Amino acid sequence: MGFISLLINVLNYVGIIAFASSGAFKAYEKGLDILGGIVLGSSVALAGGIIRDVLLGVFPPTNIVYLPYAVTAITASIAAYVFYPLVSRFQEAFLYADAVGLGTFAAVGAEIAYQHSLNILGIILMAAITATGGGVVRDVLAGEVPVIFRRDIYATIAMLGGILYVVLRPVVGGEVDILVTAVSIIFVRFVIIMKGLDKSYVTIRMVWHGVNNREKEALKGK
Amino acid sequence: MGFISLLINVLNYVGIIAFASSGAFKAYEKGLDILGGIVLGSSVALAGGIIRDVLLGVFPPTNIVYLPYAVTAITASIAAYVFYPLVSRFQEAFLYADAVGLGTFAAVGAEIAYQHSLNILGIILMAAITATGGGVVRDVLAGEVPVIFRRDIYATIAMLGGILYVVLRPVVGGEVDILVTAVSIIFVRFVIIMKGLDKSYVTIRMVWHGVNNREKEALKGK
Amino acid sequence: MGFISLLINVLNYVGIIAFASSGAFKAYEKGLDILGGIVLGSSVALAGGIIRDVLLGVFPPTNIVYLPYAVTAITASIAAYVFYPLVSRFQEAFLYADAVGLGTFAAVGAEIAYQHSLNILGIILMAAITATGGGVVRDVLAGEVPVIFRRDIYATIAMLGGILYVVLRPVVGGEVDILVTAVSIIFVRFVIIMKGLDKSYVTIRMVWHGVNNREKEALKGK
Repeated sequence: MGFISLLINVLNYVGIIAFASSGAFKAYEKGLDILGGIVLGSSVALAGGIIRDVLLGVFPPTNIVYLPYAVTAITASIAAYVFYPLVSRFQEAFLYADAVGLGTFAAVGAEIAYQHSLNILGIILMAAITATGGGVVRDVLAGEVPVIFRRDIYATIAMLGGILYVVLRPVVGGEVDILVTAVSIIFVRFVIIMKGLDKSYVTIRMVWHGVNNREKEALKGK
Repeated sequence: MGFISLLINVLNYVGIIAFASSGAFKAYEKGLDILGGIVLGSSVALAGGIIRDVLLGVFPPTNIVYLPYAVTAITASIAAYVFYPLVSRFQEAFLYADAVGLGTFAAVGAEIAYQHSLNILGIILMAAITATGGGVVRDVLAGEVPVIFRRDIYATIAMLGGILYVVLRPVVGGEVDILVTAVSIIFVRFVIIMKGLDKSYVTIRMVWHGVNNREKEALKGK
Repeated sequence: MGFISLLINVLNYVGIIAFASSGAFKAYEKGLDILGGIVLGSSVALAGGIIRDVLLGVFPPTNIVYLPYAVTAITASIAAYVFYPLVSRFQEAFLYADAVGLGTFAAVGAEIAYQHSLNILGIILMAAITATGGGVVRDVLAGEVPVIFRRDIYATIAMLGGILYVVLRPVVGGEVDILVTAVSIIFVRFVIIMKGLDKSYVTIRMVWHGVNNREKEALKGK
């Protein structure tokens, strides 16, 4: 294994651990038991890739049969759940680790979709599903509206990463492309986290008719 | 392409636009951002067919790789979200367009299930999933109990359409059958909308022991 | 068909009826109409096996095309919904029937995963998904956090059954193994129900830092 694929692998495991922890934390905060922690944690880390594989016709999905991924996800979930009071203080660190997961998962998802000859829209979709599908499953199982619908400079960046991947692929080849795409997404997310932009919604609804106006209409609609 | 398949195609696109709009409206009303609008809108328009294809073993699902469907769904979602204050006034028109989608999706779903040699129960199920699966995904993602469970003269009609399809298929062949099934469902829904029957629940629970009685028992059960 | 496979079959149908009833009851208690009862009931009885088949690449899933299963699930759902006021009194009996479903579904799921050459983690996962996936779908569709996350001596036992299955398989062969695994799970659940242990959460969060302490932290986390 060359240096580049080693690096992609390391980033991938950082992502699995960060995603699994986010699910286990959510389970803990919702008062679920440790099984809930393992299921939610593993879902965040593995479900995005499983959904991608099902849609591409890859059976059984890699995330189910490739033991190192599953074992890492389960171990990280248990650790995050059990040591919640200790580790949940380092929220900042987990935010950055989560960005690593978002970037790597999106890039790997784009590559796999590319290998299955999907068109550009399909590649963007698979990048987004691989990177954010697990979080959507976590939120649905926890009875919440998926958080990605509320902070659009998260999933959107995974999609933009998919476009970057498609543009670069014919020029630099698969491995370098995965790394460049992943690092680009991670870099953008790091800047967003450091500048605190994650909470500033820059969406069309504001441009069109200020938030307050909008919120009132939403309430009327109920 | 003959006249009949052209007509089916037109009805199908009307359905995609109507379904996508319903998802984008829901996203707007729930205060989600425009990405939520695109995801919810595209889900309603495409997820039913994707679930059907996955269950039948068609990979990748048509709704993911056939660009005209996906582009129509995304464009309609964006338009419905951005112009919500303008277009949401024409709720009546969207109800009728939605009926077109229900009928066409159910008929096309039945045809595809038939081509995969499913038995009658499977065909009915695929008609219902194709027509209503997207709406269920929308409601689950929006954190609500799926609306089809509360208005049974909606999904039930898709199922009855599936039966009609099976009965007619050996007599009239695939294309005519799709059109007749779709138009029949659309016609019944139009009548229901015009007569305002959609809100009059004609369900067994009323026949058995009046609503009030029932509601009390439901409360006791909690 | 030998005696053992006949017995497995009988247990399997008891499970389908028990699971379908639990879904139909939930629909009734939530005020859904009879279609909601059929969909929720059939989901609990069939969705676990459908998800397992999709993940293993079995298309179309057995639970969709094998009519006796589907017809039993639908019939039981209708009966449970219509006669809710009469049959819901026998909650104890349904608890035991549910245990029969949990054991049989988990054992059958493990066998099918084994036939598809999954590793031990995959077999445990498929046992758990087959046995509890339907209940998760029911709870998500009903807008609730899945109950299995709150009572971990339920799903956990399905997983332990998966391990038992793997250990026994090379010794006793498929059919006897299914029966022994199913009966073991059923026996453990019967004891848990009879001793009322289902409500006593024996989870790591208690061992680590008493419930009260934990609950407070969970509230702070919100």
